[in-house]
Order: sequence, then structure tokens, then C-alpha cells
Amino acid sequence: MVNTKNKSVIFMKRPDDYPIVGEHFVLQHTDLVAELEEGDILTRNLYLSLDPYLRGRMDGIEGAYVPCFHIGNPINGYGMGEVIQSKNSKYPVGSLVFGVITWELFSLIPPSFNNLIILPNAIRESKVPLSWYLGALGMTGLTAYGSLKLFANLKPGETIFVSAAMGAVGHLVGQMAKRQGLRVVGSAGTDEKVKVLLEELNFDAAFNYKTGNILQSLQKACPEGIDIYYDNVGGEQLEAALEVLKQHGRVVVSGMIDDYNRVTPYHIKNLVLIFQKRIKIEGFVCLDFEKEIWPEFTADVTKWLLEGDIVCKEEVTEGLENAPSVFVNNLKGKNLGKGVIKIADL
Amino acid sequence: MVNTKNKSVIFMKRPDDYPIVGEHFVLQHTDLVAELEEGDILTRNLYLSLDPYLRGRMDGIEGAYVPCFHIGNPINGYGMGEVIQSKNSKYPVGSLVFGVITWELFSLIPPSFNNLIILPNAIRESKVPLSWYLGALGMTGLTAYGSLKLFANLKPGETIFVSAAMGAVGHLVGQMAKRQGLRVVGSAGTDEKVKVLLEELNFDAAFNYKTGNILQSLQKACPEGIDIYYDNVGGEQLEAALEVLKQHGRVVVSGMIDDYNRVTPYHIKNLVLIFQKRIKIEGFVCLDFEKEIWPEFTADVTKWLLEGDIVCKEEVTEGLENAPSVFVNNLKGKNLGKGVIKIADL
Repeated sequence: MVNTKNKSVIFMKRPDDYPIVGEHFVLQHTDLVAELEEGDILTRNLYLSLDPYLRGRMDGIEGAYVPCFHIGNPINGYGMGEVIQSKNSKYPVGSLVFGVITWELFSLIPPSFNNLIILPNAIRESKVPLSWYLGALGMTGLTAYGSLKLFANLKPGETIFVSAAMGAVGHLVGQMAKRQGLRVVGSAGTDEKVKVLLEELNFDAAFNYKTGNILQSLQKACPEGIDIYYDNVGGEQLEAALEVLKQHGRVVVSGMIDDYNRVTPYHIKNLVLIFQKRIKIEGFVCLDFEKEIWPEFTADVTKWLLEGDIVCKEEVTEGLENAPSVFVNNLKGKNLGKGVIKIADL
Repeated sequence: MVNTKNKSVIFMKRPDDYPIVGEHFVLQHTDLVAELEEGDILTRNLYLSLDPYLRGRMDGIEGAYVPCFHIGNPINGYGMGEVIQSKNSKYPVGSLVFGVITWELFSLIPPSFNNLIILPNAIRESKVPLSWYLGALGMTGLTAYGSLKLFANLKPGETIFVSAAMGAVGHLVGQMAKRQGLRVVGSAGTDEKVKVLLEELNFDAAFNYKTGNILQSLQKACPEGIDIYYDNVGGEQLEAALEVLKQHGRVVVSGMIDDYNRVTPYHIKNLVLIFQKRIKIEGFVCLDFEKEIWPEFTADVTKWLLEGDIVCKEEVTEGLENAPSVFVNNLKGKNLGKGVIKIADL
């Protein structure tokens, strides 16, 4: 029997533009009173991962995407929790789990939704912060690692351009490409982010896409062109990248955050270059390869992190109640690295 | 020693929009007086291939593309000729050659430009019309055959949508996909073309993109979506295809004729679907694979044509002087199948 005070972030209304706290999602104080049925588990939630792709799930276009949110239900997304009650032998009480959980203090998770990964007990004593299991060691890191491995076909000496390069995925992509011997160029939306890219993350070049002409900045940073564009943004940066890509260049589309909140997306005017330069563009969603890549991803990235080969930049905000506003700020590019909500200590 | 009256189609001015006969290219009567130097050959030209990609070469953007045209020089493009003088042992007098020739009665071809293919003597008695060596058995056929083989990854039972489906490449792509067991859907710009697609070329569905809403027509023709979009057009048809493509759908970009003559290309508003549906888009130029694919292409397609498995639709116009106007008409979609200029009999 469960009978506890809960807090839930409820999805209220589909946004056309940026979601607004209090209008499109609200925090509700609720009572969780329930009897666990066969297969159910109850988690005490510790961390939430604030991922821009969740914005797409607010649109309500079923089929095009991972399941969209339903009005009146809690938001859900990747997060970490501890199993505190269980009627599922796969998830004993005390298990530390990672996967899709609701944005609540406590999640009652039915068996139909239990694709949670049990994290090894050893990470309770991990040398890296627990929150990194939502960033470099979570789906964010998997997105960067898996997409580079499966789609980008990186070769030492090539040049890669990463947009939203100080974002959760972007800053890992850049560092991973750098350690494979590529020249790495990034764009970001503040001078502070550009500084971090150059001084902390070892990017070869970086520019603020808000304070100059994007195409000119990219051309200046890459006088010999680029081989790969790692797209987190779409829009004008994709247009500039097509212009600067070499023949047979590749574009890996990890996201198009610029389009998520626009009623009318930016008008890209040079798509004919796809044909003229024989460009390959490939979109992906990490769900497609998570199982296939997970073991080698965990082994490699843990090693790189512990050896200081790459770092995980993050902004951890305490309190479930802050999840909506921090999420919106992330969509607006205000975060430096991975955005994480800490709900409770382990 | 060469001393002969010649006629040449000269490139005069870079067009912004559709090229205009008499303004952007003109027919000139010239005298060809020259001494062949070592390696030169002189061809008497028989056929010219009117290919939309030539419009791109008028733009003068070097590097992005196969060489662009220079003001004051003859247009050049794929064609067939007979060697009538030779100082090049690779090309004896009497050879029938296919490759890049100038739009002239006679072409003086220096060794630096001699990537011509010598056609087998047997085709003088070929059962298929000689002009088909510019269509189904020329670069047009190679484009269709090679791109389907290398990029489209066709599987029986899948649905392919081909735009400009009555164009030189499109009508071959559709027939080739059909004989591999795919459901084939095409768009074209006149009701007459739609009729030919359905009644002569065995397409499963076809629609006139000018007389209805493109997206609705495509959705109606493909209620279960499409697996592959073979793009000859870009613009609004690409936008509709992205909408109707299934998850993990593929787009093969053979051309974007809709963009060649527009100062401002159509605004595609759903590129975010590349990411959301994990779509792969690949542009190609057949020059990249012509040598690799040529032998098997010739063997396969000759067989298919002789067995009546596929047909080559073409419009042959006599007279070099008609090349510019017929070329512009082709750009405007007025041709039914491959556009060919016949300059002289063999």
C-alpha cells in the first residue's frame, strides 16, 4: 500500500511556441494512494534529465515521434530513481534505476513502462558525480557517442562543425571528435560559452552565432571548409553549414532545436547544394540504437571521464518545482552543458 | 588541316531565372579553321543530350559542381559523335564516341578533354534507336540505374515516390523500381504525362502536381506512406515527401530542378522531420560512379530494353539550332521523357 504526499509536474496544454510555466505545465501537490499490482514498482526519484527533445513530445503528433504527452498527465522523461516498493522481481527494492520516469517525487511505474536500466551498485561509490549518469554517462552521452560511431564516420584530420556546441550533447560530441584527431569548431549563443569551448574544452575554433553573421563566422573559422556538420539546431546554422561543407560532406542531425518552437521555421535557401555537393544528411533518435551501443558506450566513456580525456559540463538545479522553468531556459539556450534537476539525495 | 563551316551554340550571359534564347545563349555561324595538334580529335556530332543539370553549370559557381560554362564559349554536354579526323591513337577515325562534346556541328576536342567512351561498332546495327544511347543507355540511364543501386537500397514491397516521373531520369527510375517489385508512384506536370505513366509505364499511381494540392495528392496515392522518395525536383514536392515518408525513410536526390531557376527557392517548412523520422537524404552526381557502374549498367539495361521490360521515352528534335529552345522547354517540363537533339545521321 502506498500512501504518500507527492508533487507532480502536469502537462496542461500544447504550446505553439516556447512552453510557459503555469500555462503549459504546472506543479501540483497530490496524494499518491494506491495498491501496487503485479509488476508495478514505486520509485523515489533522484534526478531528472532536461532534454530539448521533450519539446517535440508536447506537439501531439503521434507516430512521427516517441510517444507524445497527454494533457493532464505528468511529464515524463529520462531520470534516475531508487526502487522503494516492488511487485516486480526484475527490480528489487533498493535498485538504482535509470530510464523514463515521471516528473514527480515518486513514480508508480506499471510493467508496460518498465524499460528501466538497473545501474550497478558500484556507482553509489562512483568517482564521478551521480548526476553525470544523466549527462555524459546517460542518454545524452549515448546520443553523442552512438551517433558519431554509427553515422558520422569520423576520420582524423577532418573538420567537424558542431552547433549548440555548449549544449548537453554538443559539448560531448566536440570533445569526442577532438580525441579522435579531428579539427573541432563550435557555435554557441553567448561569449561565455565560446570562452569555455576554447579554454576548457579544447575546441580549435568557436564563435557566438548571435553576435555576427553566421555564415561569415563559420567561413572564417573553417577557411578550408568542413567535412561533417553535427546539427543540433537546424535553421540558419544548417544553411551556413551546407554552404561551407565540402563535396561529399555529411550532416548528422541530432536535433533541430531552432525549429521546435517556431511556428514558421527558418527558410533554408540552399538545399540544392545537397545535390550539387553530393551531401548526405542523416537524422537519428538514440532510442534506435541504445541497446546495441550501451555496453561499449559505458565502458569507453567512463574510462575517458576518469582519465580526464573528456569532461561533462552540467548545471544541476535542486528541486522538482524548478523543472519547468529550467527546462524552458534550456530550450532558450541558457544552460551551459547538461541541464539536470536534482530532486533528492541518494 | 580543318577548314569547314561550323555552327555553335555560344553561352553569352549567366541567367538568374530560366535562360532565354538569344540572350543567354545564341547560335553562331563560324568557320572552324585549325591544325590538329598531337592528341586532338575532330568529331562530326550526331546527337546532343539535353540535361537539366546543365542549367546549374550556367551559374558560374566553380567548385560546387562540375565545371561551369564560360561566357563566349560553346555550351558543352553529353552527346554522340563520329571521329572524322584524329591525332590521337585512342580514337581512330570512324570511332563512334559518347561523352562531353560541344554544342556544335563539329567539335575540336583537345586531349585534356577526352574522357569520351568509344561505343562498340555493333551499335551501328543496334535494334534500339541510336538516340537511346543518350537516354536509357547513356548518362541518363546510368543516373537512374546507378543511383538506385548505390543509394536507394530498394526492397520488394516497398513504395517509392518519383517526382518529375515522366522526365528523362524519372521514367526510367520508376520502371526499374517496378521491375524490382516495388509499388511505384509518380508525379508529373500534365495530365498527358500522368496518363503515360499509368497506361504505358505501369506505374501503380500517378498525379498531376499542378492541378491539386501536392501533399493531399501524395497522401491519397500513398495511404500507407512511402519508403523512398526519388527527388528530381526539390521544393514543395520534397516537403510533401518528408511529410509522407515513413520512419527511417530515404530520399535520393538526383536533382532539384525546381530550385535551378528560382532566385528564392520554395520554403520547405518541415525539415525537422529529418530528425523526428530518422530520415536519410543523399545527393549524388553520376560522374562519381560512372566508371564503376558502366559495364553492368550497359549489360543490364540493354537486356531490359530488348526484352521490353522497360522502355525509353524520348523526344528527338532535329537541328542544332533548336537545342537552346528545346533545352529551355525541358527545364520547364514540356518534354515527355528524354530530350534529344539530332544533329546529323550516322
